[in-house]
Amino acid sequence: MSDAPDRPQWTDPTCPVARTVDVVGDRWSMLLIRDAMDGARTFTDFQQRTGIARNILADRLRRLAAYGLIEQVDAPPAKRKQYELTAAGEELFPVVLALRGWGERHAFADGEAHSILIDTAGAQVSAPEPVSADGTPLTSRNTRVVR
Amino acid sequence: MSDAPDRPQWTDPTCPVARTVDVVGDRWSMLLIRDAMDGARTFTDFQQRTGIARNILADRLRRLAAYGLIEQVDAPPAKRKQYELTAAGEELFPVVLALRGWGERHAFADGEAHSILIDTAGAQVSAPEPVSADGTPLTSRNTRVVR
Repeated sequence: MSDAPDRPQWTDPTCPVARTVDVVGDRWSMLLIRDAMDGARTFTDFQQRTGIARNILADRLRRLAAYGLIEQVDAPPAKRKQYELTAAGEELFPVVLALRGWGERHAFADGEAHSILIDTAGAQVSAPEPVSADGTPLTSRNTRVVR
Repeated sequence: MSDAPDRPQWTDPTCPVARTVDVVGDRWSMLLIRDAMDGARTFTDFQQRTGIARNILADRLRRLAAYGLIEQVDAPPAKRKQYELTAAGEELFPVVLALRGWGERHAFADGEAHSILIDTAGAQVSAPEPVSADGTPLTSRNTRVVR
């Protein structure tokens, strides 16, 4: 992260929320992470899934690689370049899952079709609810930021 | 949501992740939600916390209101307008918490200072780990999207 060539001036340097938003908080970056988690590997994979313009796609992939979220690997047989999520990129899974959970509840009309996420047992995956050590549901109203 | 006056052409209409990103996936919208959760109420509160240009702030607040994430309420004594999160806006808490969790782990050098989130008992709040019904940790590798 500290070696990212296009490291930004952080919008709010001591806030972890803001730093993450600085790194992946444009819609294309987050959708490319989503697609990598869903099996996209090549430039063409990403291009077809998002419909993003090729020059913007190339820029965003460079940016995600610079931040250490994806990396290029050689893929046999023709040694074409493929992109893979790094461990740090994989750890955005809870963010993607939380975005999915909110969207499922609030961005679709009743009965409107949407994709779902399932685990290896075929069970639908839901975003986990934040709770305190004693099991109390956590919200913005019973938590606070300490600087 | 369906009445939002500036409802977008959804980038990927059947994907809940993409719809959420369409709604709050620009960095200012997400940071304004963060600030509302942290107690920002007035235009000036938001302006001072983000440093955002006033015209962009006004646009983003209008947009968040149009999507039903915040609403204007009259505040005594002078009946100045204040903004409050709606129930749908409050439910972005798991998203903000997941963004915070990733940032804390991956966007700070060892020992670099950052804010933390605490509950009413003073305990630091962590983003919950996604798990299946039998407690297996869930990642992009043992889940898949079904369309």
